[in-house]
Amino acid sequence: MFSIQYLKEQFESAFLNVKWLSEPFTLYQPIDYTLSLGGKRIRPLLLLLGNDLFGGKTDTAIMPAIGIEIFHNFTLLHDDIMDRAAIRRGKETVYKKWDLNTAILSGDTMFALAYDYTSKVNPSHLQEVLELFTKTARQVCEGQQYDMDFEHRDDVRIKDYLHMIRLKTAVLLACSLKIGAILANASRENADNLYLFGLNLGMAFQLQDDLLDIYGKEEKLGKEIGGDIVSGKKTYLFLKAMEIAGTEEQTLLVDSLTDPTLAQVEKITIVKEIYGHLRIKEITEKEIENYFVCALDFLDKIKVPDENKSELKLLATSLLHRQF
Amino acid sequence: MFSIQYLKEQFESAFLNVKWLSEPFTLYQPIDYTLSLGGKRIRPLLLLLGNDLFGGKTDTAIMPAIGIEIFHNFTLLHDDIMDRAAIRRGKETVYKKWDLNTAILSGDTMFALAYDYTSKVNPSHLQEVLELFTKTARQVCEGQQYDMDFEHRDDVRIKDYLHMIRLKTAVLLACSLKIGAILANASRENADNLYLFGLNLGMAFQLQDDLLDIYGKEEKLGKEIGGDIVSGKKTYLFLKAMEIAGTEEQTLLVDSLTDPTLAQVEKITIVKEIYGHLRIKEITEKEIENYFVCALDFLDKIKVPDENKSELKLLATSLLHRQF
Repeated sequence: MFSIQYLKEQFESAFLNVKWLSEPFTLYQPIDYTLSLGGKRIRPLLLLLGNDLFGGKTDTAIMPAIGIEIFHNFTLLHDDIMDRAAIRRGKETVYKKWDLNTAILSGDTMFALAYDYTSKVNPSHLQEVLELFTKTARQVCEGQQYDMDFEHRDDVRIKDYLHMIRLKTAVLLACSLKIGAILANASRENADNLYLFGLNLGMAFQLQDDLLDIYGKEEKLGKEIGGDIVSGKKTYLFLKAMEIAGTEEQTLLVDSLTDPTLAQVEKITIVKEIYGHLRIKEITEKEIENYFVCALDFLDKIKVPDENKSELKLLATSLLHRQF
Repeated sequence: MFSIQYLKEQFESAFLNVKWLSEPFTLYQPIDYTLSLGGKRIRPLLLLLGNDLFGGKTDTAIMPAIGIEIFHNFTLLHDDIMDRAAIRRGKETVYKKWDLNTAILSGDTMFALAYDYTSKVNPSHLQEVLELFTKTARQVCEGQQYDMDFEHRDDVRIKDYLHMIRLKTAVLLACSLKIGAILANASRENADNLYLFGLNLGMAFQLQDDLLDIYGKEEKLGKEIGGDIVSGKKTYLFLKAMEIAGTEEQTLLVDSLTDPTLAQVEKITIVKEIYGHLRIKEITEKEIENYFVCALDFLDKIKVPDENKSELKLLATSLLHRQF
């Protein structure tokens, strides 16, 4: 079994070796820019770990790992247009640095590039990998649509939110792991259990993201604290607070999020105070823990020696104790 | 060999049978809308004809034919955003009828759907089909980027323009035909010749499009005559005119296209007059003829009985004598 560190280095070195620039430069420059911004590389790492778990060869899994990372960055690029976001990873977004048309078209090209790399697998695995990848890509789009729809809805329940983050975030982590398993010729049962490990880990991961938005540290996150509150996003924290708050607090919460005259700092202070009173942080941490335990249960079911699972467990744990 | 009419009916009936609607409706409604607007179905028809040419089974080629048609419609949907176009096929564009975000995301989903259907082929053909499709998708994006770049450039030459339409339009026609050939187990040489037939046909097809914009009939085209002149597009006609015009006419041409005080009708009248004087219509028709002859040369080289080629010849001829 390879260490996380080793696999990450393998990925980074292969990724750095790809020449993204091509003609027309106006199309490929934003792609090169966006793929050079870095990132946590969680998805390709999961793919390589999933592959290694079943004794797969890392070099046959590197290309689809690159494909998955391109796909993830493509979704961020188009999401940034839809959210009119100016900053991503501490740098200007493509949408802001160039323009709308460039962001749309370089994103589309990245989607094609993602398929290009994800398809560079042994022909015997191609169909299965492709079906999973395409299904996942559609689900990610569906998740993004729900996310946007929720902005204009005031009847969003926690189960809707969980369904949304499952599609928007969790399935891609699960898909990455399962592609790794498929490439290593894992049994269907093992591959499915690894998928479910990833799905639950992804849920915990996204809830952790919601938590960090408010309780994280600005300098580690690389963005301002309380962004979700300022933008009035209906996160798990908000929906849980609405669920358990009394009528008075509910009104105060909604008013704080929607009042345009309220300064950002005030908004954050008020909402944090209500969350504190309702113990939202603890409740969310408990929910994250539940998903985490569930993820580990699926990992347990996978029929490979326990010691082979240590790196995946390590990564999962580190994801949940991350500060960014 | 099946007739064009029969293959078109086969395609339309399969296409109509697909249920595009799914959840979230806000994502799939624009997809259903856009795929129900009709169209000439040239690309899927070429795929089925290319398949039939080598004795392929139509029912094994229908799914990728649907995939190609979805892909084409996805590019139109995103192009409409980039061109800020309000009308497509006589109806409001998705961008206009819904909004920017919906158009981006439903387009992305269509791209995934295009891969989904294009991949529904015999596993033995999957890799080859997929490589061609992905390469083509990238080229179409590159062509669209050149097209946009040309708007801001005043050094565009005819060879640049021809390179652009080759990428933006011709390769997809060629790709459609070749996928059909691959699925029918055509030899590499035959498949490549069919590709080159399609490439040259595609060039002729796009130049014909440029011509129809000015010399077509409004009621047949379903859009106003002279749109390219009004929007100041550097078409083959314009670039050829600039190439052969004297200095005075060159100035008049550029001024007519860029003068914001000039009424649309006036612009069209002036430009048409110059084109008439320079015999641009005849020159363009000759160029179209050249590409057409070149296309037929490649069709000739394909080693199947001549009578098998009659439907493809018929379609090619009808495309060049079309009024819309």
